[in-house]
Amino acid sequence: MKINILGCGSALPTANCFNSSQTVTIGEKVFMIDCGEGAQIRLREQKISTFRLNHIFISHLHGDHCFGLIGFISTLGMMERTADLHIHAHGDLEKILQPLIDYFCQGMLFKVIFHSINPRSNEVIYEDRSIQVSTIPLKHRIPTCGFLFEEKEKDRHLIREKIDFYQIPIKELHLIKKGADFVCSDGTVVPNKLLTRPADPSKKYAYCSDTAFSEKIIPVINGVDCLYHETTFENSDEKRAKETGHSTPAQAAEIAQKANAKQLIIGHYSARYRSHKKLLDEAKVIFQNTLAAEDGSVFEF
Amino acid sequence: MKINILGCGSALPTANCFNSSQTVTIGEKVFMIDCGEGAQIRLREQKISTFRLNHIFISHLHGDHCFGLIGFISTLGMMERTADLHIHAHGDLEKILQPLIDYFCQGMLFKVIFHSINPRSNEVIYEDRSIQVSTIPLKHRIPTCGFLFEEKEKDRHLIREKIDFYQIPIKELHLIKKGADFVCSDGTVVPNKLLTRPADPSKKYAYCSDTAFSEKIIPVINGVDCLYHETTFENSDEKRAKETGHSTPAQAAEIAQKANAKQLIIGHYSARYRSHKKLLDEAKVIFQNTLAAEDGSVFEF
Repeated sequence: MKINILGCGSALPTANCFNSSQTVTIGEKVFMIDCGEGAQIRLREQKISTFRLNHIFISHLHGDHCFGLIGFISTLGMMERTADLHIHAHGDLEKILQPLIDYFCQGMLFKVIFHSINPRSNEVIYEDRSIQVSTIPLKHRIPTCGFLFEEKEKDRHLIREKIDFYQIPIKELHLIKKGADFVCSDGTVVPNKLLTRPADPSKKYAYCSDTAFSEKIIPVINGVDCLYHETTFENSDEKRAKETGHSTPAQAAEIAQKANAKQLIIGHYSARYRSHKKLLDEAKVIFQNTLAAEDGSVFEF
Repeated sequence: MKINILGCGSALPTANCFNSSQTVTIGEKVFMIDCGEGAQIRLREQKISTFRLNHIFISHLHGDHCFGLIGFISTLGMMERTADLHIHAHGDLEKILQPLIDYFCQGMLFKVIFHSINPRSNEVIYEDRSIQVSTIPLKHRIPTCGFLFEEKEKDRHLIREKIDFYQIPIKELHLIKKGADFVCSDGTVVPNKLLTRPADPSKKYAYCSDTAFSEKIIPVINGVDCLYHETTFENSDEKRAKETGHSTPAQAAEIAQKANAKQLIIGHYSARYRSHKKLLDEAKVIFQNTLAAEDGSVFEF
């Protein structure tokens, strides 16, 4: 999985920290999470192809997480995109955005299809052969959810010489990859572990922004390879964080630690901080394997 | 007058060339023309105060000229602005933008007041004691107008020693500055030119984007100190410019020349051009005093 940060800022965008947006690349597929103002500019800057970007997930309907949608859709229209674009968001978004699309994006060759999500429950909202995305209910001023990206269990690797040795027919290989034993014509059972090596591990990524400190998310995100958790305010501003439904580095790190995350990425910084070093240092005190997102950062795991 | 370029790009924004937006600063007052996506980011980057920015003029309702409004308004709300904000635009903008303001900008301490303009006629749409703004009908795919900013005639400068010599009462000085002669108690008339030096010249600035080549604008903008005229395409793409309602450098320069403009600024470049040197060179062949806008450029005259 690869995460490209398009915007690491919070409510007030700056030249270095645009409003929230990022892409999650899994194999050939690209997903977008949130789409703040200027997201399309960062996409172009980072040379991220929109050809395989078919799904956008919007965490909540604060402007800094969705004001970039209309510009991005309009641009896709001008670029003569033909593949439908799916937007997963609170149901209100369709009512807000459709009139803009109707007015500004006439003659587009693709449809924008809205999928209403319930931010208050943990449910699967997207699924294909290799990936599943589910909602993570968060604690913010308005209904908000994070997103958990999970790769499905991958195929085991065939050991070619064993496959040849037992003369396993091609039509059986699909099952062998899934873990099946092989039964020879004489009835002998060859256990799968002789024929295959373990599958590559399936990766999990959790995006949690915007949110106040909430231990309720811990079981949902347990064991993720990477957790993106907002740290809008420094530890000294914990009171303000609580009041506004945001988190501090200590809180994000505590969540990462308790959820056994392998890595923590912090972001969604208040524009009051010119540098994010202190935020990073504060998180590292509790959770060493923390990285600070910046616009243009790329994280692979 | 001072022009700050916030976005010199056309339909597709890039990291270097955001969508159309600029400010016009006249004395203490700041006006915004167009407000493409990211305009608020450039404003902040250029440290332009929004305290005296009370009027925004929108040339037409293509997204690249107005998608930045909702983010900018939302940000002003978060910054606890109290002064009303006036938006002068085609009447449709209110229908489009008001629902967004209602949804995303609750609790703002200021009102957004829409003023519907008729882009097809040349009329005064804003006036105060020192400035007048009028529309310039342009030739584009949808109703579009440019804006002519004109300083009103300024006061003449009093010659202090003459004022003292003739013992002119303070209450008379206002009229003297406007050009009145002074009548002494014995009936002698002191002509104004003995009492004052000429006023500073009043400046004129014309913004013409988006537009195809149109000689109709020449009488409206005649004699401007500075003309911003779009040059979306290079001369070799004149056909495409015509088809899409845009201009080439040769066309912009011809307008500047025929309108006796003192200076030409070109902008609204297609994203296909990484450098704008050729566009500039092509304009200079016809109109030497041409400058190329870039995001962050400041022009004073």
